[in-house]
Amino acid sequence: MSDGLNMSRRQRRTPYTDRVEKAGVRGFSVVNHMLLPKAYQKTVEEDYWHLREHVQIWDVSCQRQVELKGPDAARLAQWMTPRNLSGAKVGQCLYVPIIDDNAGLINDPVLIKLAEDHFWLSIADSDVLLYAKGLAIGAGMDVSVTEPDVSPLAIQGPKAEDLAAKLFGEPVRKIGFFRFGWIDFEGTKQLIARSGYSRQGGFEIYLHGGHLGGALWDAVWDAGQEFNIAPGCPNVIERVEGGLFSYGNEMTRENNPLEIGLEKYCSLDGSVDYIGRAALVKIAAQGVTQALRGVIFDGDKCPTCSIPWPVLVDGKQVGQITSAMWSPRLQKNVGVGMIGRDHWKPGQPVQVDSRDGQLRAGSISDFPM
Amino acid sequence: MSDGLNMSRRQRRTPYTDRVEKAGVRGFSVVNHMLLPKAYQKTVEEDYWHLREHVQIWDVSCQRQVELKGPDAARLAQWMTPRNLSGAKVGQCLYVPIIDDNAGLINDPVLIKLAEDHFWLSIADSDVLLYAKGLAIGAGMDVSVTEPDVSPLAIQGPKAEDLAAKLFGEPVRKIGFFRFGWIDFEGTKQLIARSGYSRQGGFEIYLHGGHLGGALWDAVWDAGQEFNIAPGCPNVIERVEGGLFSYGNEMTRENNPLEIGLEKYCSLDGSVDYIGRAALVKIAAQGVTQALRGVIFDGDKCPTCSIPWPVLVDGKQVGQITSAMWSPRLQKNVGVGMIGRDHWKPGQPVQVDSRDGQLRAGSISDFPM
Repeated sequence: MSDGLNMSRRQRRTPYTDRVEKAGVRGFSVVNHMLLPKAYQKTVEEDYWHLREHVQIWDVSCQRQVELKGPDAARLAQWMTPRNLSGAKVGQCLYVPIIDDNAGLINDPVLIKLAEDHFWLSIADSDVLLYAKGLAIGAGMDVSVTEPDVSPLAIQGPKAEDLAAKLFGEPVRKIGFFRFGWIDFEGTKQLIARSGYSRQGGFEIYLHGGHLGGALWDAVWDAGQEFNIAPGCPNVIERVEGGLFSYGNEMTRENNPLEIGLEKYCSLDGSVDYIGRAALVKIAAQGVTQALRGVIFDGDKCPTCSIPWPVLVDGKQVGQITSAMWSPRLQKNVGVGMIGRDHWKPGQPVQVDSRDGQLRAGSISDFPM
Repeated sequence: MSDGLNMSRRQRRTPYTDRVEKAGVRGFSVVNHMLLPKAYQKTVEEDYWHLREHVQIWDVSCQRQVELKGPDAARLAQWMTPRNLSGAKVGQCLYVPIIDDNAGLINDPVLIKLAEDHFWLSIADSDVLLYAKGLAIGAGMDVSVTEPDVSPLAIQGPKAEDLAAKLFGEPVRKIGFFRFGWIDFEGTKQLIARSGYSRQGGFEIYLHGGHLGGALWDAVWDAGQEFNIAPGCPNVIERVEGGLFSYGNEMTRENNPLEIGLEKYCSLDGSVDYIGRAALVKIAAQGVTQALRGVIFDGDKCPTCSIPWPVLVDGKQVGQITSAMWSPRLQKNVGVGMIGRDHWKPGQPVQVDSRDGQLRAGSISDFPM
């Protein structure tokens, strides 16, 4: 399969793309109309081990912010998600599934509460800004919906805290998981959160002001030398093993949040109102018929999963895998996908049709693998 | 610059991607979370000549349809665009800029009127479905907003009509520009419009039913042999010369439709109401301060324009180019971009900073070039 990406202004570069290119990027994905580095010089397996042992710098600018600000900002935020936000505090980051009137997933961003009337939605790959604008215009809400000049840079891996403390001061060590604080950088105040799209720990700096991108990258890079820093990106092996799901891969508008295992982010008792509540309550009452599960399976290294792969029991399809990769730690292939409820118990033997002529024996697994 | 594209389910394949790969695709773009072939074996210059002389088959499935259907479908469609739709007839395709409350462009789709209460918006690269859903939910409208299983296949070039007539019958010759009719294909009724993203003429088949993709591609391919058919894609030289603009490249939410030259699609006399009317009327009264223009400029073949290039007069920036390419017909580089009103007259000498260390002499041009 050809894998060339045709460049244009429409596939937006980030404040770090110049540095990313100098660091030897080999491939990109496109998220929110923006370049996401996806491969450097290391193989995805080398990258996996490095991420688990050291620290990496990731250009995740494509996690665009949708800013909600104004008298109706809190009301709009709550209307968009089944998660009860009534107890949310300034300084908190909250994972908030967004659903439509059929309870279909539109996105699964992180909500950053900057003030009682000021939020950022740090989004996965869909134009949440247009949805929020449509809702605000349609309902006549008094709220501004914009995309600020904010480009997150992630520092991920077990040495991320030492690196962040060296660079930005010891107080960053006190920032709790999914909490944020503020650091000084080149005379500006910047938001730093203990978060990121890996299970190895780390921080995301929500750089406000793209002109500072090169300087921030260089500062992290230079300070990271003693920690064996490398350029990196979300690692598919690590995230599949860890049960981190990807909007557009593991979930689409065809899926509801209960299938994704997001019950704890869904208020179903009527204490808050939101779009899709009636549909979601009905689904909860009936019980979901499929859910995301891990699948560990045999055979040589599996190919790229760019179309869902059938998962079979006794020759009958019982689910599909949507992301998969060879795990050098487990010495097996690892995948994630939707599995029907009759076969979703861990240990269930299955076969995976990896669309390369192979039927691979495997079994259902919990997360983390 | 690396140009690898990392494949995943999230970069959706189309009903034609298997055929596109067999035809030797070398590179893709990503539009509406879907693969758009952008390069085959021919160079962009060879492709340009072929498109002007023969006929090409284009996978433009990424022109996704946003279906509006139901009692409030017509009201929602009109609310979304400044174009007066009161005279629109079933069977018509209408270019409809979509703007937000600030008159910023959200998309510039083609509206296909299937029935009085049934429309498709054939969209450029932004999630119009989420905007329409937001508006409908926010305003409590009785309309369904969905993405049907429709994947346009384009036949473009001077021999497209002969090819379409051979394959689908002589009546297709009578379909007027931006009108559509119906053809039979493998026992199904399919929509065919005289339209497409080139100035060379042709048709777009809005294939309903992705399982028929391979068969439709093969039928067009086989019938096209006598017309010297080749696989192709929107050609940047041809579209820049012809004044066909690209959402995300030439225009973003920062631009209003008057800057793009879309006055004739903007009702400003109060005869219809739509989102952004007050803002647009105000802009019209003040007059726009910049507009899209062509720029023809010297030097050797210019690089890819993936960041806007400054356009200078007397060393001062007066605009920016957003798409550009070497034209083998004009033996010059051709570009398009926003130019300030003091310097937008055709013939105005300018310099183009193509960000490769060259300042290139050129001049402002009308379309077509």
